[in-house]
Amino acid sequence: MKLINSFGPNPRMVRMFLLEKNITLPLVNIDILAGENRQSAYTQKNPTSQTPSLELDDGRVIAETVVICEYLEELHPTPALIGTTSVERAEARMALRRMELNACEYLYNGFRFGAGLELFKDRIRCLPDAVEGLHAKGADGLKLADTLLKGQTFLCGNRLTIGDLVLYCCIDFCASAGFKVAPELTNLHAWFERINSRPSATASLSSNWSEIGLRG
Amino acid sequence: MKLINSFGPNPRMVRMFLLEKNITLPLVNIDILAGENRQSAYTQKNPTSQTPSLELDDGRVIAETVVICEYLEELHPTPALIGTTSVERAEARMALRRMELNACEYLYNGFRFGAGLELFKDRIRCLPDAVEGLHAKGADGLKLADTLLKGQTFLCGNRLTIGDLVLYCCIDFCASAGFKVAPELTNLHAWFERINSRPSATASLSSNWSEIGLRG
Repeated sequence: MKLINSFGPNPRMVRMFLLEKNITLPLVNIDILAGENRQSAYTQKNPTSQTPSLELDDGRVIAETVVICEYLEELHPTPALIGTTSVERAEARMALRRMELNACEYLYNGFRFGAGLELFKDRIRCLPDAVEGLHAKGADGLKLADTLLKGQTFLCGNRLTIGDLVLYCCIDFCASAGFKVAPELTNLHAWFERINSRPSATASLSSNWSEIGLRG
Repeated sequence: MKLINSFGPNPRMVRMFLLEKNITLPLVNIDILAGENRQSAYTQKNPTSQTPSLELDDGRVIAETVVICEYLEELHPTPALIGTTSVERAEARMALRRMELNACEYLYNGFRFGAGLELFKDRIRCLPDAVEGLHAKGADGLKLADTLLKGQTFLCGNRLTIGDLVLYCCIDFCASAGFKVAPELTNLHAWFERINSRPSATASLSSNWSEIGLRG
């Protein structure tokens, strides 16, 4: 099994997940800035051309960041970043989806159609006129995060779970691309510093992130 | 355990999932058109105010359509609509996410900010100017679905899985609100008719769908 890896917040999230779970996997790096993920050698493996993906020993490929994490959690149940019971898993998945669908997807599209437009405009359909609105929708999602985090260490109480890593990697990346998180979201800022101080946060960054100028 | 249920494509998807799995659950109906889901009696249970949600016997509430399905599949493993092995589950979740993030989320926002604007404009931040672009993004996602369905019965080969239900309920709803699926997507149209002819497709519709004029 090997992880097809690249620069970017989603591959970083999987690397952070691996570090938190003490899983070691061979990484095969591809250059997304040069469009290597849009070449047929890769799109035959993952038709959406997104990274990362996980290539199994029999050649099957599992794509989609969160799906890769769910698969790895099944193979390596502890430490649990999703959960050890059905209810725990449901709580972690619920927190994850609330963050993904209310915040991260809007913020990532705000990046792709805005600060990242030069890279994306010839690769996917971009909606540059919608950037301001998408950022505002993402900010609404972060306000929800701030509310859910009130009195809690992590999104799921005292448990660090997958949603924390997904939201952290998204905010850290988008902030490095110019998105401003509202200062009044004090629960969110405190939570961010908690995640940011974990060894996995720094160790998961790409080796060339500072050269690129984005935290992915 | 009871399902807090309403009109709408997401509650319908859970009802269709229950029917396909032969699970019977007590349903408690709330009136989303009248905004009952925005009242504190419900938002205390689900702060995003979305339906459906699953209330457990101990009072805990599991929200988010797909999370409810994952939880129910763990309690009732057969017939499997996600999978019986780690790889099967990964394949089903991958197909699901490709459809949700590339098609359904755009199409639902296209509805909320467009045909559904009167209902949503005072409830959530709406981006009416983005509707055309969102529909075009959704159409790109349906083109991906058409490609993935080539030579296949369902999104995961011969297995009916959760992604088929999520995509079907989305397309059926959005089409009833005026969205046009491109006629050249022949694999997708053939797949749609296959799902549409299942007894669960009709049986999962709300009793008042035709009065409302939308297939949810």
